[in-house]
Amino acid sequence: MTVKLVVLYTRPDDPDAFDWHYLATHMPLVAKIPGLQRAEAARFVAAADSGEQTYHRIAELYFADQGALEAAFGSDEGKATAADYQNIAPPGSRMFVAVLDD
Amino acid sequence: MTVKLVVLYTRPDDPDAFDWHYLATHMPLVAKIPGLQRAEAARFVAAADSGEQTYHRIAELYFADQGALEAAFGSDEGKATAADYQNIAPPGSRMFVAVLDD
Repeated sequence: MTVKLVVLYTRPDDPDAFDWHYLATHMPLVAKIPGLQRAEAARFVAAADSGEQTYHRIAELYFADQGALEAAFGSDEGKATAADYQNIAPPGSRMFVAVLDD
Repeated sequence: MTVKLVVLYTRPDDPDAFDWHYLATHMPLVAKIPGLQRAEAARFVAAADSGEQTYHRIAELYFADQGALEAAFGSDEGKATAADYQNIAPPGSRMFVAVLDD
């Protein structure tokens, strides 16, 4: 059962500065995480309902199973990524674990 | 520039009944949407931060570009899917459009 870590970043005060750090520093840390099968990152451009555009970015990190995800974030590379997340994530940003259908 | 519709369903009162409708009725409607490149659905199992598990499910519908997404939801199949979403989405559920990096 493939699992993914879903990260929702709320809107930063300076989106360009955020994206610069995110793409040049954060994603290279993500890429080093052991057991990572795939990472997908995207920038929100609109709300598709009548609500506000709560989030600036979504990132999804895919692992073979929950054990692989837990091992990944117990590793030095995972801890370095988590520390950088704490450094950059605007207040209200969230992280969840999801199990893919099928 | 690939775009995706990101749908976040909040937690329903009866998750089993929700999932039954979602998998047996809603996803088959999604599959008929013209221009849909790929759909990925997943069930949240935990918050990975210290917050509450706000959402029950995430669905992502991929399209070639924003024009294809808009055309998709202007189609009869898209409208049928949107109507079913309105029928099943618990209060606070959200929909956003995101542009993939790269």
